[in-house]
Amino acid sequence: MDITIAEAARQLQEAQDILLIAHKSPDGDTLGSSFALYWALCGLQKRVRVECSDPIPNKYSYFLPKEMPRFEPRFYAAVDLADVQLLGGRLEPLAGSVHLCIDHHVTNTRYAACTLVDPYQAATAQLIYRVIREMGCKVTPAIADCLFTGISTDTGCFRYPNVTPETMRIAADLMEAGAQAAYINRLMFETRSRARVRAERLILDTLTESFGGRCAEIVVSKAMMAETGVREDELDGISALPRRIEGVWVSVTYHERENGYKISMRTGDEVDACTVCAALGGGGHKRAAGCFISGSLGEARERIRCALESFLPVPPNHGEGTV
Amino acid sequence: MDITIAEAARQLQEAQDILLIAHKSPDGDTLGSSFALYWALCGLQKRVRVECSDPIPNKYSYFLPKEMPRFEPRFYAAVDLADVQLLGGRLEPLAGSVHLCIDHHVTNTRYAACTLVDPYQAATAQLIYRVIREMGCKVTPAIADCLFTGISTDTGCFRYPNVTPETMRIAADLMEAGAQAAYINRLMFETRSRARVRAERLILDTLTESFGGRCAEIVVSKAMMAETGVREDELDGISALPRRIEGVWVSVTYHERENGYKISMRTGDEVDACTVCAALGGGGHKRAAGCFISGSLGEARERIRCALESFLPVPPNHGEGTV
Repeated sequence: MDITIAEAARQLQEAQDILLIAHKSPDGDTLGSSFALYWALCGLQKRVRVECSDPIPNKYSYFLPKEMPRFEPRFYAAVDLADVQLLGGRLEPLAGSVHLCIDHHVTNTRYAACTLVDPYQAATAQLIYRVIREMGCKVTPAIADCLFTGISTDTGCFRYPNVTPETMRIAADLMEAGAQAAYINRLMFETRSRARVRAERLILDTLTESFGGRCAEIVVSKAMMAETGVREDELDGISALPRRIEGVWVSVTYHERENGYKISMRTGDEVDACTVCAALGGGGHKRAAGCFISGSLGEARERIRCALESFLPVPPNHGEGTV
Repeated sequence: MDITIAEAARQLQEAQDILLIAHKSPDGDTLGSSFALYWALCGLQKRVRVECSDPIPNKYSYFLPKEMPRFEPRFYAAVDLADVQLLGGRLEPLAGSVHLCIDHHVTNTRYAACTLVDPYQAATAQLIYRVIREMGCKVTPAIADCLFTGISTDTGCFRYPNVTPETMRIAADLMEAGAQAAYINRLMFETRSRARVRAERLILDTLTESFGGRCAEIVVSKAMMAETGVREDELDGISALPRRIEGVWVSVTYHERENGYKISMRTGDEVDACTVCAALGGGGHKRAAGCFISGSLGEARERIRCALESFLPVPPNHGEGTV
């Protein structure tokens, strides 16, 4: 059942022993939203904890509690979690038990008993902000840090088309409530490890173009990862780099795996990445999707080329070459 | 004389035949602010035009008028222009004639008869927004595009520490007034020319570190510019790249010129770039400043090293080398 902000707030106010669930491969929005709710519910003297099937990356440590209580949950709330598959291995047994889901994905499958979903919100954190205010909680500096992180990370630091005037005004409120905006933005968007910087240079050296410059491709090989010592989670946003080149409609990143290539596709308005990747057995969003292709790099390139052919107006071999 | 927003608005309302002056090597803030004022003053039926000693980069064409009237100016207003040197060669003769200057640089030299300056504003565009409202002008979509561009470019798309809650709220107002926020952000921050991509790879190959990794330096040589065909205005933001490396407090970019090096310095909280560059005859903001050093690259590096020595806790030769 779809519910309102007021109803979601009421359920949380009445609940006891609450488990908040963040999605697997956690990002700033699922974590910021979950921990904002954690801090607000702690303020209401409730027993509450956050779980995620994957480890929480170190960079979010500024908003994490030192420890969280152990207890047998009586109320399960999933946050920014569109589909039970995103519970991840360890938490999959909870699939049928989720009382409340608060989310902003248009693809939400309504797996929870009650769902508060609004795809017009740039981040789930915007919904959580309104739920927290509805519960009458004060937005503490800790809550403000969490929510600012969620909004900032899901909007590419207020850059993407999902940003609305409300997004900007909530961010302003959060800054006044004590969010360390400059610190968070620096940490999320302006901090690269040395390994990442080294890897980025090698990766950009693989840049090639096809379809008359409409398609740009890069390769992330296992050799590059080994040579630079970069971790997978340090390569955040690497797939978006080729798309920045003027005139490029589609960027394709080939991440080498044991028996093939994980493909990340990023597109502009002109091509629906989800449709292209779905044809190759993958999926995702309109402007960001992915799939897996087994075999060699040459085979992967060929399959991508065929899949793109009907979407791009220039023949694949026209304007090919390194940049 | 320093004046208030109300007084600046009054002067502009009373003025006729107004020449608005943007600073040389024009950026989004000087242009966005100047053209916002241009459109507002046009709306008040005044003869007005904008001049800049350098050509206006193509990417700003979405807010430029098709043509501007020719006339003998009777009122000169400089916008985002801290010092008469920034008038640039062609407009230097106006140095003693500027009636009004509206600016947000702490280093403003008060060369104009009247100066409206507020260094706490993230962008001059924020001041212009308030002046335009004070004049009772409607913020049209064209004005909103101009001002949004100024704010977005001077804050690295709402990322830098100069962003305040007011910055976010003005941006929200401008979006509601019709600013094409997503289009502008994509164009300013997510679009790179092929020449820029090629140049960036060469420039990143010059990356070196000193002061135990606290300082990172890159070089933009004339040879690189010639080899890649990149224009100066396409290198926007290049100076910020080394600062992204974790642990780096100061980034220094050496832009080769005829008889020396133009230095761009970017810093974090730890070091005041303006103080360092002022000691070398330059100036700017706390976290972004510049200066000119004549002589060879080796000489420029040595002078920078000496200037930084008292600000960085590690000896200059400690941890030196390529990344």
